[in-house]
Amino acid sequence: MKAELIAVGTEILTGQIVNTNAQFLSEKFAQIGMDVFYHIAVGDNEERLLKVLKTASKRSDLIVLCGGLGPTEDDLTKQTLAKFLGRPLIFDPDAMDKLDRFFASRPDYVRTSNNDRQAQIIDGSQPLPNVTGLAVGGYLDVDGVTYIVLPGPPSELKPMVNQELIPLLDTTGQKLYSRVLRFFGIGESQLVTLLSDLIAKQSDPTIAPYAKTGEVTLRLSTKARDPQKADEKLTKLEEEILNHGQLRNLMYGYGDDNSLAKLVFDLLSARQETISAAESLTAGLFQATIADFPGASAVLEGGFVTYSPQQKAQLLQLDKEQLARQGVVSASTACDMAEQARAIVGSDYGIALTGVAGPEHLEGHPAGTVFIGLATREFSKAYPVNIGGRSRQDIRHIACLHAFNLMRQTLLNDGNLV
Amino acid sequence: MKAELIAVGTEILTGQIVNTNAQFLSEKFAQIGMDVFYHIAVGDNEERLLKVLKTASKRSDLIVLCGGLGPTEDDLTKQTLAKFLGRPLIFDPDAMDKLDRFFASRPDYVRTSNNDRQAQIIDGSQPLPNVTGLAVGGYLDVDGVTYIVLPGPPSELKPMVNQELIPLLDTTGQKLYSRVLRFFGIGESQLVTLLSDLIAKQSDPTIAPYAKTGEVTLRLSTKARDPQKADEKLTKLEEEILNHGQLRNLMYGYGDDNSLAKLVFDLLSARQETISAAESLTAGLFQATIADFPGASAVLEGGFVTYSPQQKAQLLQLDKEQLARQGVVSASTACDMAEQARAIVGSDYGIALTGVAGPEHLEGHPAGTVFIGLATREFSKAYPVNIGGRSRQDIRHIACLHAFNLMRQTLLNDGNLV
Repeated sequence: MKAELIAVGTEILTGQIVNTNAQFLSEKFAQIGMDVFYHIAVGDNEERLLKVLKTASKRSDLIVLCGGLGPTEDDLTKQTLAKFLGRPLIFDPDAMDKLDRFFASRPDYVRTSNNDRQAQIIDGSQPLPNVTGLAVGGYLDVDGVTYIVLPGPPSELKPMVNQELIPLLDTTGQKLYSRVLRFFGIGESQLVTLLSDLIAKQSDPTIAPYAKTGEVTLRLSTKARDPQKADEKLTKLEEEILNHGQLRNLMYGYGDDNSLAKLVFDLLSARQETISAAESLTAGLFQATIADFPGASAVLEGGFVTYSPQQKAQLLQLDKEQLARQGVVSASTACDMAEQARAIVGSDYGIALTGVAGPEHLEGHPAGTVFIGLATREFSKAYPVNIGGRSRQDIRHIACLHAFNLMRQTLLNDGNLV
Repeated sequence: MKAELIAVGTEILTGQIVNTNAQFLSEKFAQIGMDVFYHIAVGDNEERLLKVLKTASKRSDLIVLCGGLGPTEDDLTKQTLAKFLGRPLIFDPDAMDKLDRFFASRPDYVRTSNNDRQAQIIDGSQPLPNVTGLAVGGYLDVDGVTYIVLPGPPSELKPMVNQELIPLLDTTGQKLYSRVLRFFGIGESQLVTLLSDLIAKQSDPTIAPYAKTGEVTLRLSTKARDPQKADEKLTKLEEEILNHGQLRNLMYGYGDDNSLAKLVFDLLSARQETISAAESLTAGLFQATIADFPGASAVLEGGFVTYSPQQKAQLLQLDKEQLARQGVVSASTACDMAEQARAIVGSDYGIALTGVAGPEHLEGHPAGTVFIGLATREFSKAYPVNIGGRSRQDIRHIACLHAFNLMRQTLLNDGNLV
């Protein structure tokens, strides 16, 4: 199968948005052993899209069109593909139902006939339901070529691809099996240097490092007909990797849809324990991240944003003068904040984040100086962290990652501080 | 001029990297008034690259090839273009000098003949020096088509484009001027329907709608030699747009790097006033968003995350029985929370966010039912908001946008509730 991805949207050609859908789809197709030979981006223009479709239909077996399914006049992907194939557009009843329910629940929104375009599919298509939006996708075979129509917004495209498209396409025997190892506490270049011997001779499985803010992942991939065979090869390589330096301690988990926060949330849920926090530089980011997970109320009752020294003293019932003596950027204050957050809320654990987000210095400390306090029912401890040379947003984000990592280690240690 | 961008690299087609060069170049070309009609990505494969070049040379005046200039065997961009044009490769003396100096300064690096490929250009090209790498770029006119060869790594491509390519291309004097209008409280399809008369006849300036989670922008663009002339045209169109429906009230600001949060932060800073918050469903997101801005300590002293009813009562000193009678998803509770957050912290304004993030119902209310409380030193008021049919993350994000919008309106109303 030769696949070709066509993104439709003038906003891509003017540089307003990056075509990240192409990367996402390519990665997903690689995982099921499907080769992508071309990425195309073309504007909201019928004439040029028709020409692109003509070329694609001659050289590719699978053509994926992304974007241009919305309700506006310049959204013309389905209309143009219908014209190219000489087929009419029809309404998908399920998508129409969804539109009806959407507008019924929003009496303040005006429904126009344009909205109904989002429920159209090309005659003969299998509809691909859109769980996070209104524009239905489609899957259609014509003359040995498969045409797939997907919405442009990644928040709609990704679930449609994962839940609808991949299961439809994944019929080959050879599959790409991947394992993602997640590391915290080591930079990408440091990790790559450490593994340079393995990376130099990599062929099967392959090793692909990827850096996100504050963490690094390694994707190990191998093609096989048999999941067990793939598993053996991936496990062998994983073991070789983890025998390098401190990597066994720095790896915290597996998988694309994983995070330090997710692990902490799952561990707290399993133990039926609760957490509270007092956040200075992060100002609510730690707690808001926990509340991303459905069912957060079982582990998070509440906590504090204590940005000013006055509110650290008042909300956490700390002694103002002692706080001034210790300084807010200090291990003692981090401990006090964590203890009081835990005690006042009555949770099992208390987390405190205090430090300098920057760009200005604070109490003589440079941006990136952070103290994380962690309190259990018996003990408390402060952990100094240095996140220098980063932006304000990155420092606050990475401070939260450190806090989640300390909580993870504590929970894996049966709730005892590490 | 019709431009076409061709990225060469199998790592793009397998999804290992995102083709951000296409976005960067498109933005740069738009700024000098050059239209980009196609983005292509093709693998490190001579046959397919030759076909892509054939198609491009028939439809485009300017063809930009990115990537595949490195020293390894699979780097074949210049070699393939030379074959396509029937011209030999020659060595650029400056690029060779640079290679010589590079290897002279690094005795531990082994120089192979492959390295020298990086100093080659196609005969007749104007070399484009690479200040951050070793692979030289090239600029070549053949039969009315301009071919440009650029390195793939963004750290090399960007300076080459900014310092070498754009000055070569920007001979028109015509530039693209844009103005971005930002709207909150209207959906993209509703906005586009309202403006359908203007959009139908749009040509100069053009109107491009773009939807983000919870807000919509309109980018007005016009090409002109003269910024004043551009400004007049953009202002005239903006006025026509704002005369439609309630748009004058729904537009909250200008520019790409703007947000409701930024406006609230700027207004509070200018008035030297402070804000606190009690957050239930958003669990710290509102306060964390304010703390994104350097200097946040001048407007944010602290506040509360009150996720459970118990902590709403305890941390905000509310009567437990009254809270139970009112329900936590209620206007009265939103008012009480806002008043107490303001009173306890002693800030000028208090914001409360309470409601249902979902996916489960709460107190019989569906996901998306939200009440926002706003308290000043004299008054408080609750604003019901309905954010149905969205994901948990979107509901929490949009609830914060509503809270920022209410604060913005209040501050523009000289601190009096609207």
